[in-house]
Amino acid sequence: MASAEIIAVGTELLLGQIVNSNAAFISQELAADGIYVYHHTVVGDNPARLKEVIKIAENRSDILIFTGGLGPTEDDITKQILAEHLQKNLVTDDFHMNKITDYFASRSRIMTDNNKLQAVIIEGSIVLNNDYGFAAGMFLQNNRHTYILLPGPPSEMKPMFTHYANPLLIKENGEKNVLESKILRFFGIGESQLAADLNDLIVTQVNPTIATYAGDNEVIVRITATANTKEAATKLVDETEQEILRRDGSFLYGYGEASLPELVTTLLLEKNITISAAESFTAGLFQAEIARFPGISKIFKGGMVTYSAETKQSILEVSQQVITEKGVVSPECAKEMAENVRRLCNTDLGISFTGVAGPDSLEEHPAGTIWIGLSVKGHEVEAYQFVYGRDRNHNRRRAVKQGFQLIKQFLDANT
Amino acid sequence: MASAEIIAVGTELLLGQIVNSNAAFISQELAADGIYVYHHTVVGDNPARLKEVIKIAENRSDILIFTGGLGPTEDDITKQILAEHLQKNLVTDDFHMNKITDYFASRSRIMTDNNKLQAVIIEGSIVLNNDYGFAAGMFLQNNRHTYILLPGPPSEMKPMFTHYANPLLIKENGEKNVLESKILRFFGIGESQLAADLNDLIVTQVNPTIATYAGDNEVIVRITATANTKEAATKLVDETEQEILRRDGSFLYGYGEASLPELVTTLLLEKNITISAAESFTAGLFQAEIARFPGISKIFKGGMVTYSAETKQSILEVSQQVITEKGVVSPECAKEMAENVRRLCNTDLGISFTGVAGPDSLEEHPAGTIWIGLSVKGHEVEAYQFVYGRDRNHNRRRAVKQGFQLIKQFLDANT
Repeated sequence: MASAEIIAVGTELLLGQIVNSNAAFISQELAADGIYVYHHTVVGDNPARLKEVIKIAENRSDILIFTGGLGPTEDDITKQILAEHLQKNLVTDDFHMNKITDYFASRSRIMTDNNKLQAVIIEGSIVLNNDYGFAAGMFLQNNRHTYILLPGPPSEMKPMFTHYANPLLIKENGEKNVLESKILRFFGIGESQLAADLNDLIVTQVNPTIATYAGDNEVIVRITATANTKEAATKLVDETEQEILRRDGSFLYGYGEASLPELVTTLLLEKNITISAAESFTAGLFQAEIARFPGISKIFKGGMVTYSAETKQSILEVSQQVITEKGVVSPECAKEMAENVRRLCNTDLGISFTGVAGPDSLEEHPAGTIWIGLSVKGHEVEAYQFVYGRDRNHNRRRAVKQGFQLIKQFLDANT
Repeated sequence: MASAEIIAVGTELLLGQIVNSNAAFISQELAADGIYVYHHTVVGDNPARLKEVIKIAENRSDILIFTGGLGPTEDDITKQILAEHLQKNLVTDDFHMNKITDYFASRSRIMTDNNKLQAVIIEGSIVLNNDYGFAAGMFLQNNRHTYILLPGPPSEMKPMFTHYANPLLIKENGEKNVLESKILRFFGIGESQLAADLNDLIVTQVNPTIATYAGDNEVIVRITATANTKEAATKLVDETEQEILRRDGSFLYGYGEASLPELVTTLLLEKNITISAAESFTAGLFQAEIARFPGISKIFKGGMVTYSAETKQSILEVSQQVITEKGVVSPECAKEMAENVRRLCNTDLGISFTGVAGPDSLEEHPAGTIWIGLSVKGHEVEAYQFVYGRDRNHNRRRAVKQGFQLIKQFLDANT
């Protein structure tokens, strides 16, 4: 089996200004490919030291994966140094050059020479498209080594690795067998709990392998199997999936790449159910998440952010009585918010979020006490309580996810 | 000046199960000490590969800082391998052995032999107390190298480094020079443009050094200088700052760690100016960003998300005439939205966002065409146009930042 080394290039990493999360991401992917990672290295934007690092890596690893140093500034030296080391020329990639030229032309901004540098690649390499930026990536085979060059920003690196680099890597270096994998997505259970539940499966795993990942308030499990045929690999994956679901199936919400918000907005669009939201402590986070998806205006109309008791009354028409007698952290307030936003925005479904973000308590409720209201045309309005911890912004994000989960559960049960 | 290498030992890092945040933490501390970090390395729990990594590090670095591999399991090999490499004995540290013995005695739990391993240190090293765990740390000088061994869990590593390792390190290796640095924060200019403007300074830099970083629609510049005295280092930093500001000072919005939203919310709190927002394509993102900061309810009251033309009329009372004659992507609509939300939420300041998030065009305006309205008590309402690209969620985040910048400019000019 092939061995890989991940080399991050960037002085900002050595100054501790950013954490090398790229190495963790790529390592997870390579583990799933069946490629061993034996070393991570971080080196600064220094030609001599980078060259030494390349030599050391070539002595001990088959695959060298570089992140960073492909940008437009003087500090960005990765491809220049590697080209020099391999005695190869740098050439221009037309696709990325056109992309850069078009961008500056469309904005009537002056393109400096260093912008063009991002379209330069090492001769003989397969170019890896950058769908979220300008710096071209590279996949290069030379003698007995494979070199992969990826941009530093995770928003550019991850899609480039997933869509372009990894398929090439699997083809050239991965298991010769057929590889099948399946992603299971869970909400409402922590990664450590899930890992504990699956511990006996994880410690004895050989084929299939089981990997757990903590997402943004979600847990993702990837099952990967290899076999001689696609059918045999799929069978191995399915058997393991059944065993996992036997233990924690009640927390499963979906499969594949779609996060919970994406899954729910897709369902709402399919069923043409319009939605509005009234948000107190989440303050727009739920609505901002819905609006991430293009074409959503077909079903998303808007809503209110009622961060104070006054705006709950003035713009959302929550009754004075509920606010003074029950308080804003109450099922009654959550219900009125959900009903009123649905009525005021004239939608099929209205959801509300009210509670104590933290770190301080409110109305004698501790931080992390939250209520979510759900009002759907033709159904009784409901309010659901959840109790989280004291981390303000974690609570806000978790409540938003919980809101999507409640809508999914409603849709599963009623449509 | 001394050079350091941070060596993390642990297969879980190479599998991507955890991110090497320890290296970033230690790097920041060493930068402040004036000790250069030129390499980070991650290696698994493998004796042969760890030994090789130690040899490579000794060849290129003065100080070797290890994290991880000091625990009680078979996998924990760091001190054993280093002792073997340095041909030193392992001895028991009484302080940590008593701590372990007392713990198990007090809980009536059986202490296995591997628990005792955590109290074992390399002969000749200064023991570093573990105030939050059982594994002893070590500080060892041998020939021309310094070796520091720290536990892997950040909750144990950080206090041990800060309270015990770093003071020894500064005494032995640091403080030959004083290091001063300053962070400048820019909005409205891209990293590549700023780097091009400063190119001559960056390519010739020795002392001070200039580093540019792309943040979330911000650019951060760090100037770092070393000198014999604090005054001399500060003077070097200040001279470089003046030269940078002479070129791109109009884009500077602040200094230090505070992002633009944090800076603006702090200003609003200081001046006790209440705020509300009406958001179309940003859909709550601006309000959600404001609400990230605890204590913000003093000045943030809420607002509307009016994602459709209907909700702009029904809940925000934008006039039918403006919507049909001018459209929702117009200065007139932005102004009415800002004025109305300020009136309806009864605040000093109202801000609005309307435009085309993309990727598709709207009302014949291309994606990325946006208007921000600003209504402030006692001032004429204003609307500002910006033209971005086609990336929907990038446009939404950038507009939110632009909104904060407009508020900052208003506050700078009027308060």
